[in-house]
Amino acid sequence: MNMKKLHVIKIGGNIIDDDTRLRNFLLDFSHLRGHKILVHGGGKTASEISSKLGIETVMNNGRRITDAQTLKVVTMVYAGTINKKIVSCLQSNNCNAIGLSGADANIITAIKRPVKEIDFGFVGDVSEETVNVTNLLMFLEMNMVPVIAPLTHDKKGNLLNTNADNIASALAIAFSKVVPEVKLIYCFDKKGVMKDLNDDSSLIPCINGDNYSLLKSQGTIQKGMVPKLDNAFNAVQKGVSSVRICNAEQLLNTVNTPKKIGTELTV
Amino acid sequence: MNMKKLHVIKIGGNIIDDDTRLRNFLLDFSHLRGHKILVHGGGKTASEISSKLGIETVMNNGRRITDAQTLKVVTMVYAGTINKKIVSCLQSNNCNAIGLSGADANIITAIKRPVKEIDFGFVGDVSEETVNVTNLLMFLEMNMVPVIAPLTHDKKGNLLNTNADNIASALAIAFSKVVPEVKLIYCFDKKGVMKDLNDDSSLIPCINGDNYSLLKSQGTIQKGMVPKLDNAFNAVQKGVSSVRICNAEQLLNTVNTPKKIGTELTV
Repeated sequence: MNMKKLHVIKIGGNIIDDDTRLRNFLLDFSHLRGHKILVHGGGKTASEISSKLGIETVMNNGRRITDAQTLKVVTMVYAGTINKKIVSCLQSNNCNAIGLSGADANIITAIKRPVKEIDFGFVGDVSEETVNVTNLLMFLEMNMVPVIAPLTHDKKGNLLNTNADNIASALAIAFSKVVPEVKLIYCFDKKGVMKDLNDDSSLIPCINGDNYSLLKSQGTIQKGMVPKLDNAFNAVQKGVSSVRICNAEQLLNTVNTPKKIGTELTV
Repeated sequence: MNMKKLHVIKIGGNIIDDDTRLRNFLLDFSHLRGHKILVHGGGKTASEISSKLGIETVMNNGRRITDAQTLKVVTMVYAGTINKKIVSCLQSNNCNAIGLSGADANIITAIKRPVKEIDFGFVGDVSEETVNVTNLLMFLEMNMVPVIAPLTHDKKGNLLNTNADNIASALAIAFSKVVPEVKLIYCFDKKGVMKDLNDDSSLIPCINGDNYSLLKSQGTIQKGMVPKLDNAFNAVQKGVSSVRICNAEQLLNTVNTPKKIGTELTV
C-alpha cells in the first residue's frame, strides 16, 4: 500500500434534501483529485417517510431514538434512497462511486449504545477500532470511491443507525495510522462554526482545544454543534492531519487553494 | 485472473418475504464453497410500502410499471431494506457479502425499456453486454460475495428497476466468457418447473429448447414462468455451463450431490 493522501468528506443533512445543491456538491466532489471517501448524513427524508408510514419520530438532543420500526425506515432511506441517489449521480460524473453501509464488506462494525438514562434503541457507536481499514483500502486501491451511509452492523445480523459525523471522524482517525496525510472536511450549509448564527460575518476561522472549552462554557457553541465538534476534535487529537468545517459550496476552494476557508480545528 | 468456477444464484421473491426461510437459505448459501454471486428479487415489501404511502401498484403480466414515485419505493426497498437485511445476515455467517445495485462501482448499466404498447416507466433491460465483468471480478478476487439488488442505472444519473431473473442470466452469460465453469441456479419456493402446480409429483426434471416450445404452446408453462424460462434458456444457449431451477431449500444438495434436483435446462 502506497497511498500518500486521502480526503474524508462528510456531507450533511440539509444539502441532501436539496437536489440542486446536492448535484452541485457532487460535481465538485467528482472533481476532487486523489483518493477520497464520502460519508453522507440522513436528511429529513427518514422523518417524512416515518410520518407517512405512521411511525412517530422521537429525537433526543438532535439524535434519533431508533426502535425496530424506525430502523427499518432509516435503512430504507439511508442505504436505499439517499445512498443510491448519490452513487448514481457520481457515476454520471464518471466518478466510480460504490455505496456501502457498514455491513457491506464488513467495513464498519459498531457497539449498540448501552442504555443509560435514555434507550436510543438500534443505535451504534463507532471508533477508529471498529473501522475495517484493510477492506476499505482495497476499494480505494481499485480507484473506487466509497460512499458511506450512516448505518453500521454488529456482525450478529443487526444493522445499527450511526451518526455520520462519528463515522467520518472514526474513518479519518483509522486511516491516519496507515496514510501519511488524511484530511477530514465536514461540509454543511453554513460557512463554518459561527459565533452568531444570525450574523454571517461571525465565522470563527480557527478553534483549538482551549478556546473550544471556552466557547462551549459561554454557550457560543451549543446544541447539535457540540457532538459535531467533539467528533472533529477527537480526530484532531488522534493525529488526523487536517480537520475543517466549511460550506459545501466551498469544497474545491478549501482543498485546492491556500486560502483559509471555513473553520479550522487545531490541537 | 485464474477463476475456474463461479456460482450465480438467484433467490426469488416469496422466500425473501419469509424471515425464517430466508435465514435458512442464507445459511446454506454461506456454506456454498468457492466464488459466488447472489441476485435477489423484490418480494412483496415494495407493494406494501407503496400502498402505505398511497402509491398505486400497477402490474402488467407480473411486471411492475415503475413511475417516478414507484422507482423511489423500489430503490428504498430493494437496495435498502432487502439488500441490507441479506448482507447483514450473511456477514453474521462470516460470509463477506457486499451489497450492490447496478450503479455501485458501475457494475450493471441498462437501457430504459422503449415504450411500445406499454410504458413500463423507469424499467431497464440488461444483457451480457451491459455487465461490467472487470469490476465484479475485482470483488470476487478479494473473496467478497456480491449481493445484487434488482436495480441498474443508465450512467446518466437514473436508476432503473430491473428484473432479477434477467440480471442473473446476464451475469452468468457475461462471466461464461472468462470463467470456464459458470453455474446458474434459480432458487424459489417450488420444486422446479411443474407440469401441474397442484400436483407435487409433476416436476419436469429436464427441459430442452424443443420441449420448452411445446410446453409453452400447450399452456403447461405460462404466465410468470415464461419470462423466467426465457431468461434461463438465453443463458443455456449462450454457453452457461449449467442452468437449473430448484427449491431454495435444496441449494446445497443441488450443488454438492450428483443427484439431479429441480429442473435442468439444456440446449
